[in-house]
Amino acid sequence: MPGFTTRMMNSSNLPPSPLETVADCILAVHGGAGALSRESPSNDGNLDECRAALEAALRAGYAEWQKSGATSVDAVLAAVCCLEDAPCFSAGKGAAFARDGRIEVDAAVMDGGTHRAGAVAGLTTVKNPIVAARLVMDRSAHVMLIGPAADAFARQHGAEIVDPAYFRTELRWRLLQEELCKPAGAPDAHPESRLGTVGCVALDARGNLAAGTSTGGMNGKLPGRVGDTPIIGGGTLADNASCAVSATGEGEYFIRAVAAHDIAALVEYKGLSVAEAARIVIHDKIKPAGGKGGAIVLDRRGNLAVTFSSEGMYRGYITRGGKSRVMIYRDF
Amino acid sequence: MPGFTTRMMNSSNLPPSPLETVADCILAVHGGAGALSRESPSNDGNLDECRAALEAALRAGYAEWQKSGATSVDAVLAAVCCLEDAPCFSAGKGAAFARDGRIEVDAAVMDGGTHRAGAVAGLTTVKNPIVAARLVMDRSAHVMLIGPAADAFARQHGAEIVDPAYFRTELRWRLLQEELCKPAGAPDAHPESRLGTVGCVALDARGNLAAGTSTGGMNGKLPGRVGDTPIIGGGTLADNASCAVSATGEGEYFIRAVAAHDIAALVEYKGLSVAEAARIVIHDKIKPAGGKGGAIVLDRRGNLAVTFSSEGMYRGYITRGGKSRVMIYRDF
Repeated sequence: MPGFTTRMMNSSNLPPSPLETVADCILAVHGGAGALSRESPSNDGNLDECRAALEAALRAGYAEWQKSGATSVDAVLAAVCCLEDAPCFSAGKGAAFARDGRIEVDAAVMDGGTHRAGAVAGLTTVKNPIVAARLVMDRSAHVMLIGPAADAFARQHGAEIVDPAYFRTELRWRLLQEELCKPAGAPDAHPESRLGTVGCVALDARGNLAAGTSTGGMNGKLPGRVGDTPIIGGGTLADNASCAVSATGEGEYFIRAVAAHDIAALVEYKGLSVAEAARIVIHDKIKPAGGKGGAIVLDRRGNLAVTFSSEGMYRGYITRGGKSRVMIYRDF
Repeated sequence: MPGFTTRMMNSSNLPPSPLETVADCILAVHGGAGALSRESPSNDGNLDECRAALEAALRAGYAEWQKSGATSVDAVLAAVCCLEDAPCFSAGKGAAFARDGRIEVDAAVMDGGTHRAGAVAGLTTVKNPIVAARLVMDRSAHVMLIGPAADAFARQHGAEIVDPAYFRTELRWRLLQEELCKPAGAPDAHPESRLGTVGCVALDARGNLAAGTSTGGMNGKLPGRVGDTPIIGGGTLADNASCAVSATGEGEYFIRAVAAHDIAALVEYKGLSVAEAARIVIHDKIKPAGGKGGAIVLDRRGNLAVTFSSEGMYRGYITRGGKSRVMIYRDF
């Protein structure tokens, strides 16, 4: 497809990692760096479902983007809600389980024009966590609310509430059992299953950027654990002065690296392209520290960079003209 | 005192703001930018108590720093525990109340040498929240734990547990009542009371930086609200490549600005001094956006910058040679 280039990087002794760049992009999505190994039996039939969900999210975001007066935040909400509703991704329905068999979800959204932001962590009853994050941004004096109080706030402001059982899927339940039953010290049967997240970056007609991210967190996490997703500057950031970022991966590494803001700072303070900045943070900083993951990064000129250090990353983008592309692994 | 300079800045039409710099500093503390107006009757007797608590925290951190093998993280823990135990600051005992009359506390710590970090939010029973943050850093695979699960984790790993009533002080209870009883739209009787936090930055003999911050949050906050304190990159950051930062102020503005990491990025990527970087973020970015507060910032050469845009900020530092200084307002 014109405008879409994949450059293979070959640093260290690892297989080449993709650094994809797209021009004239107005919206990109990811479904996490937690793509199961392409040989995994758990993948049977799952890949088609993931591709369809990514395409549907791109279309939902694009439809919103085309509406008169719609903002990049509106487009992000539409796309992320789609991804949350898709059971194949670990966010909203299909979220990963914590060690105690419960599901706690986190999300954040940020408006690059105003720097307004909303974030939630530890929700258990809000169907679309990204909606709760936006309500915190729009209807409270705060940026971040956590736990049952955040569920209550979202409910009071009209968010759709579900029974916690709504989030449960058999795939995620099985992945938790495998995690809990493995002998101490044994390697993860599905290490990639730890990396589930969904996210979106968008650019509206007025040149405003926005970013949103939503997650069920890490399979088998301790109850109460919060990753990088709802951390403004960690997994989510939007700033018209630099770029919009939605990250995915081993959240602890992304928090310590303040990954999303570090990408933005390299763009703003060092004058790097979004591609160079994303490469440095994901591949030169976080990967050597031991953290796998990726990010989608969009600037105000419509330059999109997508990169990841995991085996795959569910991802897609759509251009101003409506051309879309969806990928999962490095080569397809 | 030699080595301590206060430069008054006079940008825009506002009264000059201090930008204090100290050379050869090894540890600095703050008790928040929430110093009550010096005319406030609530201040009677309070100032002496605050000064004594700051001095005690400096001495505790310094004593730890002098021990063979002690790290900057050890010094931060010693100083912050002191400040948490002092009822005059809104962290640990003396923390601010949420709107529902409960006290929920947050804290974070970060090691600038390893980038390891720990953070907790929404604790209600751990006497020293900074200890819980360190336990998350040292004893879990995670960076951030929230809510009752975080209390339980800290308890399981030996943190001292208290009845929630332990945190209560009459001053903070009265400030909550004033907040709840004021007519809708009326200005805050004690706007500075919203800014309570404590924090510390330190540099050890091996040249490793560390930062820690702890808070009860904003007086009258919504239950479940989390400010910048436990957000790595927001209110707390340490990175040997740049500096250690502990911020205080209207947390929402500091989260949106990713304040601590922005200061560090200006140091690392633009080559600015800690003083210049702190000035830009606190006075040129966050203040014009509407947010009051301040920060203490220390680099590996022992250069300390202290700045704030509020009426006062409880603060102090100690040099390698053990010389200390404590201040509250701009001039004393």
